[in-house]
Amino acid sequence: MSDLPKRVHLQEVGPREGFQFEKTFIQTADKVKLIDALSQTGLGAIEVTSFVSPKWVPQMADAEEVANRFKRKPGVRYAAVYLNQRGLERAKANGKLDIAGVLRIIVSNEFSKRNSNKTLEESIAEIPTWLDWYRQNDVPVAEAGILTAFGCNFEGEIPLSKVLSVVERVLEIGKARGVTFERIRLSDTMGWANPEQLKRTVAAIRERHPDQAVWLHLHDTRGMGMANIYAALQMGIDHLDTSIGGMGGCPFAAHKAAAGNLPTEDVALLCEEMGIETGIDLEKLIEAARLAEETVGHPLVGKVMNGGLPPRHK
Amino acid sequence: MSDLPKRVHLQEVGPREGFQFEKTFIQTADKVKLIDALSQTGLGAIEVTSFVSPKWVPQMADAEEVANRFKRKPGVRYAAVYLNQRGLERAKANGKLDIAGVLRIIVSNEFSKRNSNKTLEESIAEIPTWLDWYRQNDVPVAEAGILTAFGCNFEGEIPLSKVLSVVERVLEIGKARGVTFERIRLSDTMGWANPEQLKRTVAAIRERHPDQAVWLHLHDTRGMGMANIYAALQMGIDHLDTSIGGMGGCPFAAHKAAAGNLPTEDVALLCEEMGIETGIDLEKLIEAARLAEETVGHPLVGKVMNGGLPPRHK
Repeated sequence: MSDLPKRVHLQEVGPREGFQFEKTFIQTADKVKLIDALSQTGLGAIEVTSFVSPKWVPQMADAEEVANRFKRKPGVRYAAVYLNQRGLERAKANGKLDIAGVLRIIVSNEFSKRNSNKTLEESIAEIPTWLDWYRQNDVPVAEAGILTAFGCNFEGEIPLSKVLSVVERVLEIGKARGVTFERIRLSDTMGWANPEQLKRTVAAIRERHPDQAVWLHLHDTRGMGMANIYAALQMGIDHLDTSIGGMGGCPFAAHKAAAGNLPTEDVALLCEEMGIETGIDLEKLIEAARLAEETVGHPLVGKVMNGGLPPRHK
Repeated sequence: MSDLPKRVHLQEVGPREGFQFEKTFIQTADKVKLIDALSQTGLGAIEVTSFVSPKWVPQMADAEEVANRFKRKPGVRYAAVYLNQRGLERAKANGKLDIAGVLRIIVSNEFSKRNSNKTLEESIAEIPTWLDWYRQNDVPVAEAGILTAFGCNFEGEIPLSKVLSVVERVLEIGKARGVTFERIRLSDTMGWANPEQLKRTVAAIRERHPDQAVWLHLHDTRGMGMANIYAALQMGIDHLDTSIGGMGGCPFAAHKAAAGNLPTEDVALLCEEMGIETGIDLEKLIEAARLAEETVGHPLVGKVMNGGLPPRHK
C-alpha cells in the first residue's frame, strides 16, 4: 500500500527551536535538565542550542553554558545551529558538539531578505564562501537546507519549479567544488505544505537527484503537519525533525495550538503504531514532554501526553 | 498516487459532541448563535443537539430549546442524537430536524457495558427492536454505526476480525428484515486508529460489502487524527465528522490538546489544499471557530484559526 520505512530517525529540535520561541528566559539548568531527559529516551539526535547573537535571540544567550553542562550520551548526535562564521567558531570551540556543515537557503526571496537580510541570489552567491569555511575548519559538509520550500507567509506560494531550480543550483555549486551533500533537508518553515504537494516535491527531487537523501523539517501551523508526516513516511522518508511536546508555537499565543513543530512523542507513536521502529521508549518520551511543559510553564500542544499511551507501549 | 475524492462532505458535530464535554453550562442563546453561524459556512450537515437524559448529560438539558430556536438553512441537513425510543420521540416531536434511523453498536464489550449498560451481544440482540421502532415511526433507516472500531481504552486492541464479524451480523439482521443501510459509520471513539489500520479496515469492509458506503468519525486523542483523515481521503472516503475548533476535548483539561474531534476548519483546509471540494467558505468557517472559542470560554485546539489561512483562500 505504501513504502513505509522500517526505521525512522527523529531529530529532536525542541531545546533549540522550541525554547527560542519562549518569551520568558528559561534558566540554563532547566534547559540542561530537559536535554538530559531527552538523551535517555532513545532519540538518536538532539539539537541542543543555537549559537546566534543574544541581541536577536535572547533565549539563546546561554548557548555555551548549555553546551558545557548537558551530559553526552554515547550514540546520540548533539547538533547546534549557527548562522555565520562567528557562530560556527563558537560551536566548534565548545568541543562537545557534533558539528556538521549545513547550508541554509531560503527559497522565498521576501523571507530571505527579512530573516537574513540577503536576497535569495545573494544567499546562493555566498555558498562557495560557506564551503570554504567548512573546508578550512575541517567540518564535513552534510546538508543542503532548503527553507520555505512549500510556501511563505510573505511571498505566498512557492512553485515547485523554483524549489527544483534552487536545489539544482546548490548541488551544482557543491559539485564544482568537489562537495557532495549527504542530504537535502526541505523545511516547511511556515506550515504551508499539504501531503500531496509534499509527495510531488519529494518525488521530483528524487527523480532529478536519485542519489540524494531527502530529510524533512515540518511545521503544524495550519493543522496539516501530521498528515504531512504520514505522506513523508509513505514516500519512505526516514529522517524527520520534531519537537518535544510540539514546542515552538507562536510566541504571542503560546498556549494556543499555533505554529509549532510536530510533537516528537506524537510522531513517534504514529510510527510505532504502524510498525516503524523509532528506537524510542515512548513512556520516557512522554515524561520528557511533561517536563517540557513544566519547563516552559504553559500547556504544549502534544496530544498523546494527554490522551494516554495505548497499553501495548507500556 | 491515490484515490482522493473530488468532493468531501463534512458533518459538523461540535454543537453536540463538542458542547457535551464542556463542564460549564453554555447558554441556549450562545449554542443557537454558533449553530446559525455554522449554517452560513457552506457546511452540508450539522448535528445540533442530543436528546439524552439531562441527568446524564446536563449540557443537553436544553435540546428542545436549541432545536426550536436555530434557523434552518435550506440545503443543510440538521441531525440530532438520541440513544433510546424516548429520545427518538423527543427529536421527532420537535418537527424541525432531519431524523435518520441510526444504530449504534459498541464493538468493545467493556465500553458497551460502561456506556450503555449492555453487553455487545445484548446490543446486537436489540437491533430488531430498533428497526421495528424506525418502521413504526416512519423513520428511514440510514446508518449502522460501529463504535470503538479501532481500539478501546477499556478493552484494549479491537481485532479487525471482530469488527468485520459485528458489521456482518448487523447487516445480516437488517437484511433479514428487508432493511438496507445507507452507510456504515466507523467511529474511532477513543482515538486508537492509525492510518494503515484505518486503510486495512476500510478495505476489508469494502471487499466484503462492496455496495456499502463507509463514513468515518475520528478523534485526535493521540495525535494521529489528521494522518487518519489523509488516509481516509486516500481511500476515497467522502463523508467525515468534524468539530468546529476541534471542540470535544477532555473536559478536565479542556485547554490542553486532549481528546477532541478533528477541527472542521483544519480538515476543510487540508481538503481544499489538495484540490478536494468541500463547498465551504474557509474564512467564514474560521470565524465560526473563533466564535466557538468565545462560546466555550477557553482556547480550542484548531490550528489554522491561529496559523492563518493561506492567501489564496481569502
